[in-house]
Amino acid sequence: MLPFDIQEYQERLQKTKKSMADRGIDVLLVTDPANMNYLTGYDAWSFYVHQMVVIIIDEPQPLWIGRYLDANGARVTTWIYDENIIAYPDYYVHSDVFHPMSFVGEILAQIGQGNRRIGVEMDNYYFSAKAFMKLQQALPNAKFIDGDLIVNYVRIIKSQQEIEYMKRAALIADKAMHHGIENIRIGSRENDAAAHISYHLISGTEEFGGEYTSIVPMLPSGKNTGIPHLTWSDRPFEDGDSTIIELAGCYQRYHVPLARTVTIGNPDDRLHQLTPIIQDGIAAVLEAAKPGATCSDMEEAWRRSISAYGIEKESRLGYSVGLGYPPDWGEHTASIRKGDQTVLEPNMTFHLIPALWFDQYGIELSETLRITENGCTTFSNYPRELIIKHPFLLNQHGGEIS
Amino acid sequence: MLPFDIQEYQERLQKTKKSMADRGIDVLLVTDPANMNYLTGYDAWSFYVHQMVVIIIDEPQPLWIGRYLDANGARVTTWIYDENIIAYPDYYVHSDVFHPMSFVGEILAQIGQGNRRIGVEMDNYYFSAKAFMKLQQALPNAKFIDGDLIVNYVRIIKSQQEIEYMKRAALIADKAMHHGIENIRIGSRENDAAAHISYHLISGTEEFGGEYTSIVPMLPSGKNTGIPHLTWSDRPFEDGDSTIIELAGCYQRYHVPLARTVTIGNPDDRLHQLTPIIQDGIAAVLEAAKPGATCSDMEEAWRRSISAYGIEKESRLGYSVGLGYPPDWGEHTASIRKGDQTVLEPNMTFHLIPALWFDQYGIELSETLRITENGCTTFSNYPRELIIKHPFLLNQHGGEIS
Repeated sequence: MLPFDIQEYQERLQKTKKSMADRGIDVLLVTDPANMNYLTGYDAWSFYVHQMVVIIIDEPQPLWIGRYLDANGARVTTWIYDENIIAYPDYYVHSDVFHPMSFVGEILAQIGQGNRRIGVEMDNYYFSAKAFMKLQQALPNAKFIDGDLIVNYVRIIKSQQEIEYMKRAALIADKAMHHGIENIRIGSRENDAAAHISYHLISGTEEFGGEYTSIVPMLPSGKNTGIPHLTWSDRPFEDGDSTIIELAGCYQRYHVPLARTVTIGNPDDRLHQLTPIIQDGIAAVLEAAKPGATCSDMEEAWRRSISAYGIEKESRLGYSVGLGYPPDWGEHTASIRKGDQTVLEPNMTFHLIPALWFDQYGIELSETLRITENGCTTFSNYPRELIIKHPFLLNQHGGEIS
Repeated sequence: MLPFDIQEYQERLQKTKKSMADRGIDVLLVTDPANMNYLTGYDAWSFYVHQMVVIIIDEPQPLWIGRYLDANGARVTTWIYDENIIAYPDYYVHSDVFHPMSFVGEILAQIGQGNRRIGVEMDNYYFSAKAFMKLQQALPNAKFIDGDLIVNYVRIIKSQQEIEYMKRAALIADKAMHHGIENIRIGSRENDAAAHISYHLISGTEEFGGEYTSIVPMLPSGKNTGIPHLTWSDRPFEDGDSTIIELAGCYQRYHVPLARTVTIGNPDDRLHQLTPIIQDGIAAVLEAAKPGATCSDMEEAWRRSISAYGIEKESRLGYSVGLGYPPDWGEHTASIRKGDQTVLEPNMTFHLIPALWFDQYGIELSETLRITENGCTTFSNYPRELIIKHPFLLNQHGGEIS
């Protein structure tokens, strides 16, 4: 069941251990589900309870520690030996008496790791304030070190196999975008379009299926297009509406995000005017994105391009992307913004999303890109345009499904 | 846009403040997205960055503090006055220099709350170890108190309007289950069935749309039915396969989960034998579930019912359910298990899921129930049976959708 050769997992582990050594960490407690998957293959919707992968710098095998119920999932989805899969009893789950991190602390003490320098992912969603407190109580002789993003930074450069998976994710993203746009029409509702998108994200292609994405499709329409991060409502589309679709295809947990803006009938003049500005800005960034340049250089290319039009953008332009679990497909490492000195290398991948939001309206056109030997290339083949739909032209494919 | 009367939000706020007072908390920092929604209406996929609702015991209005981009979403989805919506600049997002909780600390100090007793949701996904550390650094004169689950316990008894929303969620759950089962057949794949389920969860009914669920559909088949919390693969269904479907309908963020087991062709004898045992056990729990009884009494009814068959179940039987955001629709309060002394009251709602997992196979039949004045009632109308499909009988409704 493993999506990568054991060799690739071993390389990831070695890079992680090198980074641990650089920071003086003996034992790294990996609680980010994407990092757990990256190092071991572990894949299940079990991250709503406490769980982790433990990397001990002088041990060849990771440990998986999680809920009793989920140990079988760890056995079948990872390359970890069965004896390194350690489960806590169910009475630790959502209990006001027992905490899983007390169990973890006991285990670490038992195997002689209780007085070492222990790295923890301090700002990860799945490492709560209480988790840290309980660990500290259980391991009074350990020294805790912030190990946040250690594995995320190993993830920043993708292997050929990871790029292959992202290409598949891109095929799924393009297909879902096509069907989403087909289903935005007068008389259908935002949720109907979102339903079609979700169907195609998961059905994938005949050759391979799609997976759940770390973020659900965003689909604000009408005046809500000025508000990022709304998902969908059951409001019917009307003549003149614009709609922003932001989605990602996902394959083997690798994401390729894609955003487009579509209007029913003639677009607002402002959208017409903004489109070439964003297209030019994206082209300028893609031109600047090459090995040796920095994320900040990419942002500068954008800023120079759009400044001629008197437009400024406060929020970042994009971020490193790839492997992910809810709630985010971003990797939390490099951002495309002023001052980010990350030096671009081949097979880094970014979601470039220079969205512009104003009062009552907004526009998004995005690309997921890969740094190549000499420049960069985009994953999606979807036209980088403002999509304009005739209000009274029905699709051939619309309607109910079973 | 608010899904509840302002009066209902005010009552929730008053109950929260009462609980704060009981624990000696002056200021509660609410970081659980479900709790933020419950108190204010806030609804957006923005919980992948730090954000919160602040409840000050002697102030009538909550504060919303979040990312600059998301402030417009707070303005349109909540009843909070615009001047109480406070945004941090984008350079705080996923930065190794700036942390949003430092900003929050500065704001709290500026408005005179810096030396008060501050409650924090210590074990919430969205309150990381680093978030707590940064808050403590920014507010050296505050006293921090564990305020975990304060709002969750207010949520445990539902209002009539909440029950109405759960009834809608149940209609969606039943529809999605129907179409999921329709699409489990030889020649289709796990992801195809999951795609149909997701389509119907979101398209909902003609009268109202569905929403994304806190957990995606689980859909293990074949020998993977012995492994909880696997989602789906692109493995094709085969004659003789059994499949477990666990899903929830969601409306206004209220969930009604539902699990069933389906076989293609004649079921394994063991599933045949287990089904009436689970049906009897569920019936015994539903009989025991009434005001004045405890969660532990529900578990005891189950244990007594199944012990005659020599079966034991290690994991809990269920949990309080309702409002939720990823990664969990459980409320993290009452669990249906031995020793849980929560006394049942009318309009408490539970997902009763006495799943049994064995090596290579498993079975799930579940019900979401509501405690009534005299007993309890279930939300779903789906037959509580092992569903057996003829292997070579094709559906009328199958096939591709646009």
